[in-house]
Amino acid sequence: MPVGNVTLPEMLSIAGIRLGVAQAGVRYANRTDLCLIELAPGTTTAAVFTRNLFCAAPVTLAKQHLVQANPQYLLINTGNANAGTGALGLLAAGECCESLAKLAQIKACEILPFSTGVIGEPLPADRICNALPQALADLSEQHWAAAAQAILTTDIVPKGYSCEIALQGKTVRITGMAKGSGMIHPNMATMLAYVGTDAAIASPLLQQLLQEVVEDSFNAITVDGDTSTNDSLVLMATGQSGVTISMECPADVQIFKAALAQACISLAQLIVRDGEGATKFVTILVESGKTKAECKQIGLAIALSPLVKTALFASDPNWGRILAAVGRAGVNDLDVNALTIYLDDVCIVEQGARASSYSEALGKAVMAKEEILIRVLLHRGAMSQTLWTCDFSYDYVRINADYRS
Amino acid sequence: MPVGNVTLPEMLSIAGIRLGVAQAGVRYANRTDLCLIELAPGTTTAAVFTRNLFCAAPVTLAKQHLVQANPQYLLINTGNANAGTGALGLLAAGECCESLAKLAQIKACEILPFSTGVIGEPLPADRICNALPQALADLSEQHWAAAAQAILTTDIVPKGYSCEIALQGKTVRITGMAKGSGMIHPNMATMLAYVGTDAAIASPLLQQLLQEVVEDSFNAITVDGDTSTNDSLVLMATGQSGVTISMECPADVQIFKAALAQACISLAQLIVRDGEGATKFVTILVESGKTKAECKQIGLAIALSPLVKTALFASDPNWGRILAAVGRAGVNDLDVNALTIYLDDVCIVEQGARASSYSEALGKAVMAKEEILIRVLLHRGAMSQTLWTCDFSYDYVRINADYRS
Repeated sequence: MPVGNVTLPEMLSIAGIRLGVAQAGVRYANRTDLCLIELAPGTTTAAVFTRNLFCAAPVTLAKQHLVQANPQYLLINTGNANAGTGALGLLAAGECCESLAKLAQIKACEILPFSTGVIGEPLPADRICNALPQALADLSEQHWAAAAQAILTTDIVPKGYSCEIALQGKTVRITGMAKGSGMIHPNMATMLAYVGTDAAIASPLLQQLLQEVVEDSFNAITVDGDTSTNDSLVLMATGQSGVTISMECPADVQIFKAALAQACISLAQLIVRDGEGATKFVTILVESGKTKAECKQIGLAIALSPLVKTALFASDPNWGRILAAVGRAGVNDLDVNALTIYLDDVCIVEQGARASSYSEALGKAVMAKEEILIRVLLHRGAMSQTLWTCDFSYDYVRINADYRS
Repeated sequence: MPVGNVTLPEMLSIAGIRLGVAQAGVRYANRTDLCLIELAPGTTTAAVFTRNLFCAAPVTLAKQHLVQANPQYLLINTGNANAGTGALGLLAAGECCESLAKLAQIKACEILPFSTGVIGEPLPADRICNALPQALADLSEQHWAAAAQAILTTDIVPKGYSCEIALQGKTVRITGMAKGSGMIHPNMATMLAYVGTDAAIASPLLQQLLQEVVEDSFNAITVDGDTSTNDSLVLMATGQSGVTISMECPADVQIFKAALAQACISLAQLIVRDGEGATKFVTILVESGKTKAECKQIGLAIALSPLVKTALFASDPNWGRILAAVGRAGVNDLDVNALTIYLDDVCIVEQGARASSYSEALGKAVMAKEEILIRVLLHRGAMSQTLWTCDFSYDYVRINADYRS
């Protein structure tokens, strides 16, 4: 079960964004697996995609379409990732776009396609095309919750975030949804996430804001170290709140950026809380480093260590494994004798060895918790990085040994 | 259970090397956990150690002793790694050496200490010192098998290799033993391994040969991506065969080097076959790369992927996960459309997408095997790298969630 409070919040509608779902039967019957997002004219869109070289056909096509036209629709299917499918995969993704373009009387390049699910199987484009009228008929500004459900694969819970901020005497909304549970290791964006706002933001600024917040949100989580072929994060700004965010008022940009960062961090954390087989939600904070990059490198070595992750699952304060992970992280001029490590507020390592105040009982008490902070102090600079991860359980193996069959 | 044939071979004695074991009760009673290796005068020794910055106290001390004197004894304990133990750990390792030096009437710097086991616990030096007379009394050239047993931790089986080669009309022997099952990710040497030969080889050449063969043997395996704090590999040459290996006869060096490489590869493979929870033995061969380094980088991305490893455990030909791992390996100018991937002799990916000749039935037949070859062709050069790994099973989680408790 997911760790902590993962209840879907009230998903505030975003004026100018309508969502519709359908049962296409891509892989499974009796579940919604198709999601359509319609953007009102004037909406600007920014996106970041996976850096996996084997990016999926829909990612390739979406990138092409983004430079050709302003998106009017996002078309998302689950059950099939349409990745590792070569030229036929591109044709299948194109066919889905063409079919929707015909129904909506727009150009195919005004549609961004997204897929998630099994890699390497041919996409059943016909099933998706047949379900498009159903999804179009379902379009509504109120359907964020249904959409958040329709985009899931091995996820247990739908993931959403919604907030309002006051700007220029008006109210600006941000609402977002995400899916992802396994094959989670950030490199650009992670899995599928869609965030909408009713602020008006020109494309270049929108893209810049998205790239800035993604580093400390979606690119700061990992479940299993495997970067997906289909990762995509899309930010859509309809402008229908009447509030324009631009560099003419940098203070407003900062306020909006902070709210957007919070939305992305919350969605990213929900992915970790619902990580495959997760029983613990772990925050890793690496502090007082020379650079943010070295802090991230050390944090990732801890977050990715199967030995640290199984010790977390066992609630075992086997902190030598944390220390070993720091030591192999590849930051080779690190003074290990300066290092301090805390589990929550319990100091376990000082000056590179077991803290004099540490006792197994203190460590056990922290490790028994469902949410744990691992804090590493490098004592050589002023930079820091926070990462989020989960533990490694029997259920991770079960889910990934069973998936597909 | 270990994968494949892991029976300890007949461990041929090496003239000039005597081994003794004892029950010190470092962590558990009723098992041998102390091993002494005595080297006859004139023996040369080469060693490589972990690159983990948190190297254990015995590793630090062994490195110091190696530059001070020619080793006469190797002292190995299991049950406690004496790592993450700071200044007290160094004192404890020194105390064990001093105690043995007194009994054997030599200098402490003529002893190399080694430890393996739990990280972060104080080393019970008194128990080790008390058991030294027992180990000294047990010294014999015939005790390789007992020694191979005494150095184990979570290993299921002892690991050994032994061979004879004909050189200069005489017979040269190589016999080696290794331990290691978890926290296996090569970076220099992996875990503890000791290889002896009765050839005479001067120290500089011995060290060079060891460093050359380690790259494609111990540094080409991974179980879980975690580099140990205690990795050590020692090569000892007693010279008592009457055969001298030197650069005056390069052909002999090559013959010896090939035999040494085979010994190290066999021992390294045994570690993988006995990998924690392993049910499959997997060879990863990355071919036709520009550099050996990029082949290794891609091979490691596959070998370390929890998704690939759980699919191997499930015997599921979920090859999209292999493709995704190649894509995220970080070789960023790779032409993914040129890629070919085989499972044994079944072509699963050609030109970056599913091979036309591939069928699920063919993939399933390979994946059902206990020993599997994953072969990736990059089609951009003449270099290659072979790696060995195992799968990720429920038992890996069980072993590492239970270890310590």
